[in-house]
Amino acid sequence: MLNHLSKLVSNRYIGTTICSKRCYTTFKYNKLNDKDIEEFKSILNNEETLLIRDKDDLVSFNSDWMKKYKGNSQLLLKPRNTEQVSSILRYCNERKLALVPQGGNTGLVGGSVPYDDEIILSMSLMNKINDFDPVTGVVTCEAGVILQQLEDYLEPLGYTVPFDLGAKGSCQLGGNISTNAGGIRLLRYGSLHGNVLGLEAVLANGTVLNLNSTLRKDNTGYDLKQLFIGSEGTLGVITKVSLITPPKPTSVNVALLACDSFSSVKKLLIQAKTKLGDILSAFEFMDRGCIDLVLRHQPLQEPFSEKPKFYILLETSGFNETHDQEKLNEFLEYIMEQGLTVDGTVATDSKNQSTIWKFRETITESLGKEGAVYKYDLSLPIDQFYELVEVMRLRLGSKANVVGFGHVGDANLHLNISTPNQKYSKEMINLIEPFVYEYTSKHNGSISAEHGIGLMKKDHLHYSKTSSSIQLMKLLKNSMDPNHILNPNKVLPF
Amino acid sequence: MLNHLSKLVSNRYIGTTICSKRCYTTFKYNKLNDKDIEEFKSILNNEETLLIRDKDDLVSFNSDWMKKYKGNSQLLLKPRNTEQVSSILRYCNERKLALVPQGGNTGLVGGSVPYDDEIILSMSLMNKINDFDPVTGVVTCEAGVILQQLEDYLEPLGYTVPFDLGAKGSCQLGGNISTNAGGIRLLRYGSLHGNVLGLEAVLANGTVLNLNSTLRKDNTGYDLKQLFIGSEGTLGVITKVSLITPPKPTSVNVALLACDSFSSVKKLLIQAKTKLGDILSAFEFMDRGCIDLVLRHQPLQEPFSEKPKFYILLETSGFNETHDQEKLNEFLEYIMEQGLTVDGTVATDSKNQSTIWKFRETITESLGKEGAVYKYDLSLPIDQFYELVEVMRLRLGSKANVVGFGHVGDANLHLNISTPNQKYSKEMINLIEPFVYEYTSKHNGSISAEHGIGLMKKDHLHYSKTSSSIQLMKLLKNSMDPNHILNPNKVLPF
Repeated sequence: MLNHLSKLVSNRYIGTTICSKRCYTTFKYNKLNDKDIEEFKSILNNEETLLIRDKDDLVSFNSDWMKKYKGNSQLLLKPRNTEQVSSILRYCNERKLALVPQGGNTGLVGGSVPYDDEIILSMSLMNKINDFDPVTGVVTCEAGVILQQLEDYLEPLGYTVPFDLGAKGSCQLGGNISTNAGGIRLLRYGSLHGNVLGLEAVLANGTVLNLNSTLRKDNTGYDLKQLFIGSEGTLGVITKVSLITPPKPTSVNVALLACDSFSSVKKLLIQAKTKLGDILSAFEFMDRGCIDLVLRHQPLQEPFSEKPKFYILLETSGFNETHDQEKLNEFLEYIMEQGLTVDGTVATDSKNQSTIWKFRETITESLGKEGAVYKYDLSLPIDQFYELVEVMRLRLGSKANVVGFGHVGDANLHLNISTPNQKYSKEMINLIEPFVYEYTSKHNGSISAEHGIGLMKKDHLHYSKTSSSIQLMKLLKNSMDPNHILNPNKVLPF
Repeated sequence: MLNHLSKLVSNRYIGTTICSKRCYTTFKYNKLNDKDIEEFKSILNNEETLLIRDKDDLVSFNSDWMKKYKGNSQLLLKPRNTEQVSSILRYCNERKLALVPQGGNTGLVGGSVPYDDEIILSMSLMNKINDFDPVTGVVTCEAGVILQQLEDYLEPLGYTVPFDLGAKGSCQLGGNISTNAGGIRLLRYGSLHGNVLGLEAVLANGTVLNLNSTLRKDNTGYDLKQLFIGSEGTLGVITKVSLITPPKPTSVNVALLACDSFSSVKKLLIQAKTKLGDILSAFEFMDRGCIDLVLRHQPLQEPFSEKPKFYILLETSGFNETHDQEKLNEFLEYIMEQGLTVDGTVATDSKNQSTIWKFRETITESLGKEGAVYKYDLSLPIDQFYELVEVMRLRLGSKANVVGFGHVGDANLHLNISTPNQKYSKEMINLIEPFVYEYTSKHNGSISAEHGIGLMKKDHLHYSKTSSSIQLMKLLKNSMDPNHILNPNKVLPF
């Protein structure tokens, strides 16, 4: 699943990085000097390999993998433990040296790339899985553990990570939590705000906050760990994590269903949630435009004899094959009787399941072959979910091809506007923005459902958050990091 | 289920309220004068009934229902809407008048009772259910809605509230969220940090924070609503709530299982979680002492021919009766084969289910008939969960009867120490405390699993939270409520 990563390929901001820099912070930082380097060496026990200063070696850390954002850091530090992170932060805070914490650097909004010459704090060597409790299913590990590494560790134990991302081969848990990662499993297991039980985080002044509880219930004062979930490294550096992990489902079914109206899609979702209950693990939406697109670029066949407007990829995951199939069959019979679906196919073996998933998973890749693509990751109330796609089609007419897909079970729409055989144009952006943000804002939607704000959407935050909310966020930032050394120029427009 | 409320009956602090007052805040507040009253009248549109000043009428609001805590408020205000709450707070902040927000006043730690002469801000008239979306299952309502009122509203729609409390007939949603209420359903649906999608809250200075998103995914900046979940009204007053509600299960099974070792209890829990998966809705633990106690005071019969040491009340809730029963039967066969249970009984009809539940539900009531009872609500890692009960038995010998029960699936132990025919004694408290808190602290447990801190445990907070954490909590409090007008003397020891 290259979904999340490959989205960036056609991102509208490529080549226009400079426009994001217009609100450069007014905070002043010191320049790195030789004495600083000596200090960092000493903190890192004189292990020379834990400091990277060579310009060429720094290139890949100074940019995201799509080369969309570029920083100019002169130093990367690789602490081995929390004490070292703490000493580094304490020193930087006293010296007013800015830092950007970096996990797998797979983010999509420039949150983990230096804005200017910040020191890069790489978490990659803090990658130990410390403990797993098979009674509670709680796993405790360091922030630099890679998501796939944790999944591989849990699988033979019969457990699974409660979230899944396309970037799982390289993204790190600390980064996942700092960005409040979403993904397909959110429908089933809920958000990280519920699944993270504890954290250890280092504050800007070097204070180590031990919030690393493994308890499901702990009502003793403010739930401080929540501050670090989704704040993109601007309030502290996550060093350890305790996570609830659910038992890994042993039986999986996948269905592709076709509908001729979005109203049927909505009814299908209600029925899936009530009739399939807790075994429903994915309810992904694609419009006909997505299917056409995929068929143009992938070796896949038209799934049904007719070409209805909407498609649902539905997945069940459970622990009893017979029961799950029976439930799915009952559900399918019901929705056919009610005329909610006009056609459908079910796959129980993994090969056919994988074929069905390809329709969903290759949309982004196929879009990349359609010229310039303008991509938006939005949450919208269900009544406006598809309306926006239709509104954009009316607005853009023959100038562009508008398609919509996404996690409709979570109301998360991926709106994609492609202009075949054309390059990115300011005119097209101006036709789309700020209209799309204004529309989202008017309907109390979110301009970033799962990718975060980072550098990319910092100046658009007001479309999803009131000025009072932004003011309170700034108050928290100023209180917890008064020198603004942590990930400057990200999330909040100062 | 009187569990939560009746716990207070035998609380160790009855009659010793004064000891909690030793850390009285040094913040200075003004005394209420006639001009203030006129101002509040004007804010409340001159509706005289929205101000209560009569001493007798104030009695029930000046104390919790157990008369454990007593305040001396001279004024209760009943705003009808957010604007009125905002105007009241703005005025109080300017005038340095302290307030205590009050919902159903069913809390167990004195969090909603005035400490001194704070104004009581009653949320009871803000009790409208505003909206329910059957596609997403998201309900939006005012903070004064009573939990049972919401359950009754949702039931005919086929949905249910994702948490359940003994106090549901009078507790209010705003209070539930302010105290991060737990309860039995937490095992299945997770905590309010995951289930609350949005809030509207009024800050100390009167600023209305509209965080009332109904979106499951919204990664736009810091997740501010989390600050108000579990902070017991010390950071703001919750005025509106958006909540995920799950479809109401249509099939329920209840089993009572007996084990002869706690190691079997742990293995049972693992098997229940993997074999019953998502239909497991309760896994409640009782030791033999609890059963003896209940049999002494309730019209119930010895459940099994033998008298093993441990009992598990297991509940499944699902949507397919046949499937759920089959799963339960398979699970039961497996655990009997493995020798994890020495006896068991299953109830599928509601009458027998209710009888089984009585063993669990009447423990607290039965304890109340056993003289002075010293009660502790703790979270402990599973390996120490029952060890503490045994340690306390060794420690107290023949001086007391020690029993343990609780939500073992959430690692939440209710430790109860009774001294039949005796009154509360300082000697007994000194034998138990601070030992029990130190033990909990040593094992990274929580001294308040679900009841919160309030006034009662404010001075014990350090047993569960490090000084750095308490310092950060104070920083947040000082930043967000610099005059400390919101619920003074609660949660944090200033």
